[in-house]
Formats: sequence, structure tokens, C-alpha cells
Amino acid sequence: MTRRTTTTVNVGGVHIGSQAPVVVQSMTKVPTTDVARCVRQINRLVEAGCGLVRVAVPRRADTQALAKIVARVNVPLIADIHFSADRAVEAIEAGAAKIRLNPGNVKSRDDLHRIIDSARAHRVAVRIGVNEASIRDLSRAAVPPAQRTALMLKEMRQYVRIFEKRRFDPLVLSAKSSDTPRTIEVNRAIAEAFAYPIHLGLTHAGLPDDARIPSAVALGTLLAEGIGDTIRVSAAGDPVVETKIAVEILMSLGLLARRQVELVVCPTCARSEIDIVSLARKVKKAVAGIDKPLRIAVMGCIVNGPGEAADADLAVCAGKGKGFLYRHGRRIATVPEDRIIAELLRELAGL
Amino acid sequence: MTRRTTTTVNVGGVHIGSQAPVVVQSMTKVPTTDVARCVRQINRLVEAGCGLVRVAVPRRADTQALAKIVARVNVPLIADIHFSADRAVEAIEAGAAKIRLNPGNVKSRDDLHRIIDSARAHRVAVRIGVNEASIRDLSRAAVPPAQRTALMLKEMRQYVRIFEKRRFDPLVLSAKSSDTPRTIEVNRAIAEAFAYPIHLGLTHAGLPDDARIPSAVALGTLLAEGIGDTIRVSAAGDPVVETKIAVEILMSLGLLARRQVELVVCPTCARSEIDIVSLARKVKKAVAGIDKPLRIAVMGCIVNGPGEAADADLAVCAGKGKGFLYRHGRRIATVPEDRIIAELLRELAGL
Repeated sequence: MTRRTTTTVNVGGVHIGSQAPVVVQSMTKVPTTDVARCVRQINRLVEAGCGLVRVAVPRRADTQALAKIVARVNVPLIADIHFSADRAVEAIEAGAAKIRLNPGNVKSRDDLHRIIDSARAHRVAVRIGVNEASIRDLSRAAVPPAQRTALMLKEMRQYVRIFEKRRFDPLVLSAKSSDTPRTIEVNRAIAEAFAYPIHLGLTHAGLPDDARIPSAVALGTLLAEGIGDTIRVSAAGDPVVETKIAVEILMSLGLLARRQVELVVCPTCARSEIDIVSLARKVKKAVAGIDKPLRIAVMGCIVNGPGEAADADLAVCAGKGKGFLYRHGRRIATVPEDRIIAELLRELAGL
Repeated sequence: MTRRTTTTVNVGGVHIGSQAPVVVQSMTKVPTTDVARCVRQINRLVEAGCGLVRVAVPRRADTQALAKIVARVNVPLIADIHFSADRAVEAIEAGAAKIRLNPGNVKSRDDLHRIIDSARAHRVAVRIGVNEASIRDLSRAAVPPAQRTALMLKEMRQYVRIFEKRRFDPLVLSAKSSDTPRTIEVNRAIAEAFAYPIHLGLTHAGLPDDARIPSAVALGTLLAEGIGDTIRVSAAGDPVVETKIAVEILMSLGLLARRQVELVVCPTCARSEIDIVSLARKVKKAVAGIDKPLRIAVMGCIVNGPGEAADADLAVCAGKGKGFLYRHGRRIATVPEDRIIAELLRELAGL
């Protein structure tokens, strides 16, 4: 996969752009004024894989709390701004490394210039965030969905021009929609039109169980086409869950190194002679605590078993009452079914 | 999304190719000789959304059972063949509408010709299935992963040529790997090289929880690029789960019409003033039985709430202690928090 070439934006030491790895981010979901809880949630997000964390600061008390939070965490924070230029400037002064802004939601051009000048003075990056649900050009209900990609792109052009005219270029762009095809389409268009890094997200994707697949399809497609420099999965619930989904998407594409065991399992069919699913579940449980990027294959027949074994650190091809164990593709033992797990774990300890 | 133009292959009345909708398929996982269980599983798969079902027939008894199964189900069946030309011919004579074959696993050219001639005589389609785990060209362990896409494409070319020379063209092609980027890469290459429909799958993807995201990324990316005419998600477990994942992938891309309520939910942030997640869960539970493709938005603030409401059949934008209800984008009521669900359901009943 070749990443689309972009500029590089420095967000408090974390680089966003094609010269850097794709950064996972999420957003806190507790009151920003509850500094202790907020710090705890941020730390959990970092542990889960976030390289950046976003915090909403709708009120003056929130930007005041932000200064305290910044001082207590080891990750650059992004302030999420809507409507208020005062909040934006306060957040910048409080130590946000980046602010997220929909310029369409800021009242006046003067306000926008005030934010830009403050960001420049403090070396703070800006994400220009356009959202299908906030298109302001026209009464949105009147614009058929098929025409909204063009409208979002037009909005983005107008906003970018304001920043460029003011000679401000540490920009990251995002265009979000709750519709998967439109998210793909609008980001392809933005990738084509600009050289700035892109923040990807499928917005309002639903509860985690509903959000997982549309998010993987939308973000996965774009990433597989080289588009996207930082990503956020949006799901209603614990942001650690969002982060885990984002991490899984990146890992599946090889854009993030695995830290745990990867389990390759045949889906089973009428050829299976032993209960592969139970065996795989037991293996998964047994390796849950192992923080090594090993690949283990649990296969049920000789059609693809030896082939998958060749790519795995360890593998078992299980047939009637027994399993053939493989280490790095070489068959090392034949064991009775009830000894498969024990022998696999013994081998694992030796890797 | 524009589908890649392909030939059309008739599989017992179900059409595969760019002129037809993308067909979901899965595979039975009970002994084929257990006709009653097999029929039950096939019926469950059809109900879950399969337009085709594949059955493995490794033994003579399985192809005998297949004839009975064919007579008892209302969906075209695909026989999964490995190694044995006899099984292939028996399956065709038993009424399979398509057979899946890796020609590399069939012993001789004569055997392959015998299968092709039988398929032609019975108007049965053939899927040529290449699998990274069965590359036979070279000892596979010796071929670095980066070179396997080319190798799989080369194998596919050789196999297709055998069929074309025999003037047999109701072909569907598949190239599977357990690696997401390689699955994307090899299918892009095959889409470029041939005009036959493509069957997509990420093979050996693991237990359902592990298979979901890589499958959505691999299949979603290809489908979003117009590639793929029939899909199968491979997960170790109940094939109904595979089918549901496949259906979700297609629905997220608008390639399959929704039959249930779609829930748009804001992910919540520090701006939320009521517990949106609980509210969304309650709404989800309340609408679980409704088989209408309605869109319901549950939003937590005024930034994107009215915008999402505009696209939803029903929406609630919830703030401190109350919710604004919208029907087709028009605000229709303001209700206290504890009445939101009841009012939403009342509105729903009227749609």
C-alpha cells in the first residue's frame, strides 16, 4: 500500500502525514471539568493505542480545566471547538496542541482570523472539520444526498482558502458523514484536491456493535487506497472501544504492528473431523496474555492446513482424534486430540 | 459506486456478475451425510441472506446425500471439490448448480477435462478457486509473501486458459488469502486481468470476533472499488454469523437494501448532557422487531443533531432533561427525558 503524499503537521511532537505512521485518536466522553476522570480516561485511551486525544471544551470552565489536564497527561491534546472563538483561543493558550474547528460554525471572519493568529503564535495545528450534518451552504434537507459530496468539497475549499490567505498551513482536513459510501467518496475527492493530511472518520456510526463494520469498511477502504493520516472511530460508548476498533483496522492492513497473537482459523466445513471452533476458542484463551506478535494457525483439514502452517509460527492441523503440530512450517509432532492444547502451549513457551 | 463490468454466470437461476446484485454465500458446517441437519442449516442461511450455499462433498456418501439435499431446498447449491474428479462429476450429476474447484488440486489434465465436459453437459458453473495456502507452483514457504500475488495471478491465468481452451466460460474466479492487504491486492490484479465475475473472501479469518474487522476491510475495500460479485465471509463458527457479517458489509455500502431500522447515534462527548448511550440502547431494543428500513437518529447536542435529523425518519436531539423530537427533519415536539422512548415509539407506530 502506498500512502498518498501529504505535508507533515506537528501536533505537540506527534507527526501527522504520509511521512509518519497513521495516528489513532479518540475523544473523551466525561465532563472536561472533572479533571481527574478526564485524565484517567485519557490514560486509558493512550494505553489502548491513541496517539492523540480530543477533548470538547464548550464552556469557559472547560478550557480552564483543559490547562490542568494538559499538565497531567503525556499525550498531545486536541480541543474540539464549536461556535466560540473565545473557547478556541483559550484552549490554545491552555496548551492544546491542535484544535478542531468547523469554520462554518464560527460567527465572523474576524473571529476566525483571531483563532488563526493565536494558533500560529502558539504553534498549534488546526483541523478543519466539515460534517455532512452541518453543511450550511443551503438548507441541507433541500440538497439530495448525491450532491452533498460536491457541497462538502466546496465548503472545504472555501475554508482552506481562508487559512492559506492568512499564510497558515499546519492544517489537517476532515470531511465526515454517517453514510459509508459518501465518506469514501468525499475523502477521495479531498485527497485529490489538497496535499494536507486527512483525518478519517465515519461519524455517528451508532452503538459499537453497529459501528464496527461500517467503520471498518469506510476507513479500511480509504486507508487501503493510501488515504488517511489519522483516524477516529466514532461509536456511542466507552472511547476505549472506539480505539480498539481503530487499532484493529490499522493492524488488518499492516499499518500498525501487531502486539498480540494472531489466530488464523479455518472456518470449518463438512470436511472437519474434530471440533475446530472449540479448539480455536481454547487456544485463544490460552494465548490471551501473550504480548508477542505470533501467528498461530488452527486448521481442520489437509487442503489448506499445511499452507497456513508454513506462514505461522505455530500451527495445528487437526484430524480425526489427533493433531499435527507445526513450528515455522515444519511438522514437529503428532499428538492425540486431548493433548493438542498442552503441546501447543509447551511449544509456545519455547518461541 | 460503479461495479466493474463482468460476464454474467447463471447459477441455477441466481445470476452472478455486474448485471446482478452482489450475492451473499456461506458454507454448511455439518456432515453432508446428515441430510436433515444440512437442510436445516441451509434454510437458516437462506433466511439470514444467502443467495447461494456451498456444501463440501469429500466422500462418495456426501455426493449421494447432496442429491437428497438438492431436492429439499429452494436455493442453488455449490459443491466444494478438492482432489477428486469423481466427486466433482457426481456432484454435478447430483444437481449442484456450480462447483468450486482448485484445478491445482486435481491430479491430471484428463480429470479436469472430464469435469469441464460434465459441467457443460449439465449447464453447471465453475468457480476456479486459488488459495494462497495452496499455491503449488513452488514450495510455498520459499516464496516471500510479497511475491505471492504475482504467483496467484499466474496460477489463475494457467487455470483459466485450460477452461477457455475447452470453450467453457461460465466461470467465477476467486483468489483467497488470510492476509488482508494481499487479498485486496490479488483481487485488484484479477479484476484487471479478467472479465469473469469475482467471488470475494478473506480466508481463515479466525473466530467471529477476530474475523469481523479484517473481513469488512478486505471485502469492503474491494466492493467500494467495484470489485466482487459474490462474497463469503469466513469465520470459525455458525455460518449464520458469517452471513450476517457479509450482509452488514453489503448494506453499509448500499449494495443491499436494509430491512431493519438503522440507528444513527452520536458518539457523545463532553458536550452531552444526558446519557445518550443508554437512550440509544433502549431505542435499539424497542425497534428490534421492526422490519422496516427506517433511519432513526439519537443525538446529544445541537452541533450535528438537527443535520442528522434532517436525513432521519425520526430523530431525537437530547439535552438537559429533555429531548426534541423530529419527524423527517421537522421538529414536532419537545418531551421530558423520561418520555422520550414512549413518544418515539408512538411516532414510529405512525410511520
